[in-house]
Amino acid sequence: MKRKKDKRRIFLDYASITPIDKKVLAKMESIQKMTFANPSALYSEAIVAKNLIKEARQKIVTIIHAQKDEIIFTSGGTESNNLALLGIFESVQRSDLKNSKSQIFLGKPHIITTKIEHPAVLEVCKEIERREGEVTYLPVSSDGLVSIKNIRESIKKNTVLISIGYANNEIGTIQPIHDMGRVIKDYRQKNNTKLPYFHTDACQAGLYLSLDVLKLGVDLMTLDGIKMYGPRSSGILYVKSGLELSPIIFGGGQEGGLRSGTENVGVCVGLSTTLEIAEKIKEKESKRLMALRDYAIKNLLKIFPNSTLNGSREYRLPNNINICFPGLDAEFAVISLDVLGISASYSSSCRTLKEDSSSYVVENLGKKDCSQSSLRFTLGRESKKSDIDTLVTVLRKIVV
Amino acid sequence: MKRKKDKRRIFLDYASITPIDKKVLAKMESIQKMTFANPSALYSEAIVAKNLIKEARQKIVTIIHAQKDEIIFTSGGTESNNLALLGIFESVQRSDLKNSKSQIFLGKPHIITTKIEHPAVLEVCKEIERREGEVTYLPVSSDGLVSIKNIRESIKKNTVLISIGYANNEIGTIQPIHDMGRVIKDYRQKNNTKLPYFHTDACQAGLYLSLDVLKLGVDLMTLDGIKMYGPRSSGILYVKSGLELSPIIFGGGQEGGLRSGTENVGVCVGLSTTLEIAEKIKEKESKRLMALRDYAIKNLLKIFPNSTLNGSREYRLPNNINICFPGLDAEFAVISLDVLGISASYSSSCRTLKEDSSSYVVENLGKKDCSQSSLRFTLGRESKKSDIDTLVTVLRKIVV
Repeated sequence: MKRKKDKRRIFLDYASITPIDKKVLAKMESIQKMTFANPSALYSEAIVAKNLIKEARQKIVTIIHAQKDEIIFTSGGTESNNLALLGIFESVQRSDLKNSKSQIFLGKPHIITTKIEHPAVLEVCKEIERREGEVTYLPVSSDGLVSIKNIRESIKKNTVLISIGYANNEIGTIQPIHDMGRVIKDYRQKNNTKLPYFHTDACQAGLYLSLDVLKLGVDLMTLDGIKMYGPRSSGILYVKSGLELSPIIFGGGQEGGLRSGTENVGVCVGLSTTLEIAEKIKEKESKRLMALRDYAIKNLLKIFPNSTLNGSREYRLPNNINICFPGLDAEFAVISLDVLGISASYSSSCRTLKEDSSSYVVENLGKKDCSQSSLRFTLGRESKKSDIDTLVTVLRKIVV
Repeated sequence: MKRKKDKRRIFLDYASITPIDKKVLAKMESIQKMTFANPSALYSEAIVAKNLIKEARQKIVTIIHAQKDEIIFTSGGTESNNLALLGIFESVQRSDLKNSKSQIFLGKPHIITTKIEHPAVLEVCKEIERREGEVTYLPVSSDGLVSIKNIRESIKKNTVLISIGYANNEIGTIQPIHDMGRVIKDYRQKNNTKLPYFHTDACQAGLYLSLDVLKLGVDLMTLDGIKMYGPRSSGILYVKSGLELSPIIFGGGQEGGLRSGTENVGVCVGLSTTLEIAEKIKEKESKRLMALRDYAIKNLLKIFPNSTLNGSREYRLPNNINICFPGLDAEFAVISLDVLGISASYSSSCRTLKEDSSSYVVENLGKKDCSQSSLRFTLGRESKKSDIDTLVTVLRKIVV
């Protein structure tokens, strides 16, 4: 965002990316100046580096109520999701669990997910199918909610993993992860089995919802620095201890053998600062954005009588506004908004391969006519009431 | 490296990691301030970001004599090597090439590499064996050189990839990549086949040797920012156009579908600046370090009469000094050196899983007694003659 040249631009695509927090940047720059050693080496500088990573890890596990060694630093949310899904699939496929006494394992590994996951989960599921795994893609309600009953009924003897996004990136719908976790735990206890594990992609949830892995009842959780005003190309995968995972990148054996490649001290420390800040202002900022969000939704639905809200009204991220304007060409609208000084998106901004502007998420709400006519506005730390007013004014010129 | 507090420390582990160049850092910080948009989005800020990546890519391909779209940005050298090896293996395994008309394919995919590769290649090869691929690990001469004749004789009908490190990370031996490339090309022409492809891990070579992919005759080449005074967690994989590769990380489809995950604009631009600087000073800096290296080797071998040089004297990286001191406990020596103000390493600094201090590279030179008694000193931009003099003085206290 060229802020200096063009002060009046309004950025409403915070679900796609957030600017790096100045405090995080300052912290990373101070690390950069202090040490550049390879943390895997033996000498003093390396030990300093290693300890910095250790401290960062400790801060993060404290925030998410995990234990030390339960998190892996990755290059981003996409890699974390890949490691979670492929890691569990390969680990079971390679019989680590197939042969375990506590597990009567039948058939090929089966994964349960939903039809509205981010491509960083859905494309991994397709890869798992290519590797002869089995995947169930659960539908969602017209509100974007996944049915817990559906999850329970989809669990089979060969189900190894259930991966449900905490909050959807397009429509902001929040899933009842805690309740799902309880149902999955019940199943495991009743059937005296370690499987299926429960993974949640919490990339969109990090800034607004509880990340307490114990309360959530998840075994794996993905976080992404770039969605939380943190370092670019930085991710976290929480992996409950005792859980067996195969790596997807092989080499020097860093991160307990699960993620090879020289550790990035600055990024690790930056991520811990990112989470500390997010946690500190979570409640206040959520409330502030919720008010803005509700103000926007109320106004937009009133001014454009044919428009409808995509996704649940109640179980919704504080920063997500996703509206269907029937008949609108969403791609054209995003470009027009851009010309008029507003950065927004149709569907998600994270896909480069798909060439059409339709949203499979909106389509899965049963709103087929809305899939190419919906706009997503996502708020962030710099959003203010006047931005919404400007948005409404500008949209009047575009939506007819 | 705590530079301010402790000015007299001498860093001699530049093969493990290099500090980030101030110009690269400044460039990255200017990008950070200018834009934070997700390059995959549609609005102006995203287009600025996309163009910055495009320019960076163009600069890099010009330097390595590649064409546009022939490079993939990754999270580091380790990931690049993984993508090269697993990418080719999986692509063939999935029959893309098995069924091609120009290819009579027999048996499971076969890969040729050497016994002295970095773990980021060797561990991937082990994974390929677990995936039922076949790997030939070529031996090296007492100088650390791979025999071209050996390579030629190891090629089979099912050989899909030959991966040879350009210069070894421990002993600095430079392989005749150009000559190998010619032999592999000859084989392909004579047999009217696209395979085997030729990959080189050039992580250690980037600062000192030619990166001209056309002259080298390679189809894939790995580079790592952290080894070239560039951004941390940054890598490049050169992939010749027309070559089929399976991704190892799945999602939004960035980097032509070969590397999903939001692109890191700052890192891409930082990498192009890194390569520009490296290329500019390559000749001068290589000469300067070669003189230092030769001064060190000459002095050490003279002062410690039982000591021997590991790796080729002639085909050697300008910054690598690797000496066997018979009877020395290398791990203890590295710690002692550290106490006396010098950062060095035994074998490599990039392995965290191995718990012993022995070097498989040195062992493969036929110098078994040296595998736990060798020290590596690698020079860099801040190294000077007085560092070598200090090293010699300090070593006199440690080596008896």
